[in-house]
Amino acid sequence: MSTLQQQLQHKINTKTKPLGSLGVLESIALKIGSIQNTCSPSLSKPTILVFAGDHGIVNSKPVSPFPQEVTAQMVLNFLQGGAAINVFCKQHNIHLKVVDAGVNFDFDNTPNLIDAKIKKGTQDYSTTPAMSLEDCEKAIEKGKELVTKQFTEGTNVIGFGEMGIGNTSSASLIMSAITQIPIEKCVGKGTGLNTEGVNNKIAILKQVQLTHSNYKDPMTILATFGGFEIAMMTGAFLKAAELNMVILVDGFIVTSALLIANAINPKVLNNCIFSHCSNEQGHLKMLDYLQVDTLLNLGLRLGEGTGIALAYPLIQSSVHFLNEMASFESANVSDQKS
Amino acid sequence: MSTLQQQLQHKINTKTKPLGSLGVLESIALKIGSIQNTCSPSLSKPTILVFAGDHGIVNSKPVSPFPQEVTAQMVLNFLQGGAAINVFCKQHNIHLKVVDAGVNFDFDNTPNLIDAKIKKGTQDYSTTPAMSLEDCEKAIEKGKELVTKQFTEGTNVIGFGEMGIGNTSSASLIMSAITQIPIEKCVGKGTGLNTEGVNNKIAILKQVQLTHSNYKDPMTILATFGGFEIAMMTGAFLKAAELNMVILVDGFIVTSALLIANAINPKVLNNCIFSHCSNEQGHLKMLDYLQVDTLLNLGLRLGEGTGIALAYPLIQSSVHFLNEMASFESANVSDQKS
Repeated sequence: MSTLQQQLQHKINTKTKPLGSLGVLESIALKIGSIQNTCSPSLSKPTILVFAGDHGIVNSKPVSPFPQEVTAQMVLNFLQGGAAINVFCKQHNIHLKVVDAGVNFDFDNTPNLIDAKIKKGTQDYSTTPAMSLEDCEKAIEKGKELVTKQFTEGTNVIGFGEMGIGNTSSASLIMSAITQIPIEKCVGKGTGLNTEGVNNKIAILKQVQLTHSNYKDPMTILATFGGFEIAMMTGAFLKAAELNMVILVDGFIVTSALLIANAINPKVLNNCIFSHCSNEQGHLKMLDYLQVDTLLNLGLRLGEGTGIALAYPLIQSSVHFLNEMASFESANVSDQKS
Repeated sequence: MSTLQQQLQHKINTKTKPLGSLGVLESIALKIGSIQNTCSPSLSKPTILVFAGDHGIVNSKPVSPFPQEVTAQMVLNFLQGGAAINVFCKQHNIHLKVVDAGVNFDFDNTPNLIDAKIKKGTQDYSTTPAMSLEDCEKAIEKGKELVTKQFTEGTNVIGFGEMGIGNTSSASLIMSAITQIPIEKCVGKGTGLNTEGVNNKIAILKQVQLTHSNYKDPMTILATFGGFEIAMMTGAFLKAAELNMVILVDGFIVTSALLIANAINPKVLNNCIFSHCSNEQGHLKMLDYLQVDTLLNLGLRLGEGTGIALAYPLIQSSVHFLNEMASFESANVSDQKS
């Protein structure tokens, strides 16, 4: 433990409560204090960037029960304030920005939608890599740029969400390639496939793995199987860690972007707090691979960054108790008999 | 399922999200809608009553690492705003009321402390029942009265917290008597006993069980082993259910009061939402006995109602998504391919 961490632990231990009795909130307080290098951390302008992108695979293979146009329709729903992530961000005063990373739709110009479109959806990876390495790098750079912008505008705590019909398939392929876990254990029901649908999806993705042979390094894995929204989140993770922000991690697809970012630079994990364990079965295995625990386990499998928004009050509570609670001394409360 | 529940489920299912993807929040929305008999429920004037009381046992036996005066000191800390429950209630705009149910201290008159003192602490149950049946009934009535007052002032969602050095011992004895689980499996470290301390506590409470023979019905169990704060919470649970409020349940000690209330009237459970699973080892077994799940599992063991305050934003989110999210139809989003 560093001197600062010792000071933080002392501050936590002398609050008017039994030792350790705030459980996980104490670890979070210690982590945020350590990231910000202070015993009095603060959260400023919390922001969620929701990255949307389309996936070529859905036009040739039945990997999702929803049609591709739902990606664009949900982006419009975000802009109109009708989605779950809107409701939860509004509840907790979280700034929400929607990013068109590569949706197969021409949106009207609107100040609330960040146009970062690389292409109108990826290629179909059942025949060809999803992205060129050049486009993949472009997406990563764009993700970095967007995070930098938030940082310069005063955000020190950030999370990423996603929308993209078909993107649990990308996440499963990335997961399998990075963790070496067989694809059948990386595939789940996504937005709601039945057992037959899941088995189909497994068979399709097994075939996809056989189609590609040259995907050993993280960048090639990302370009081969990823989506523009996933690549952009990868860049966003890397830059947010570089800028020493507190990073809140959402569910299965977002964590697949983090698997790539972590493979590129493992230091990124130092800044990450994992908001929830998704009901998508691969997520728990991703979390085990990264050796991390989550704050919530509510059976969510919605994406959009909703797990982050729901966990955010607990992050705030961790900072609040550290800054606002009285100590045994200040409140004249007797500590434990020694 | 009633017609209303079918309507609620339909409303939940047609929101712009994959079916079931909000997990536990969907069950909570269904539960709150059912309690309030409406598809558009609302939460009004959320309130936590923190009941404080002292326990005679701590003067003769080493069941807690903290001295008895900490109960009064913590009540003063609540009144000054320095405790964890103050910080979390402030964060979420929850009304907090502190109730002197039976603290061994003469507090100055202050508008923020509700004087409901039955006696200055219970009798030592290692030799005699903690309360007379008459005092126990008085405490129950007082709990009912306090809840009724909150209800008439506009509260429709309420939770109870507690403070009382020694009260995990009461909770363990009540738990063992109600559930028939042997006392050694009902005892935990409380505010922080070490292994030797826990073993001592088990030995002490085993002896206590042998001292008393006549505790079969819930009221006698409560009077023999309880505390004034526990009895008051028992009455509070019964009245809050009778008034059809949404009731949020905290940790180990609060749930021991609910075990009594449930034994008196099992309908009380229909109105209860369980906020968290405590790190006090008996709590999970209580929850199993009641066949209920919790929203949070954060390793908390602080009491005061802190688990309720921390879970409250999730309760709000459940209501918000039900009331505020767009439907597939209203947002022009395509539903699943059939």
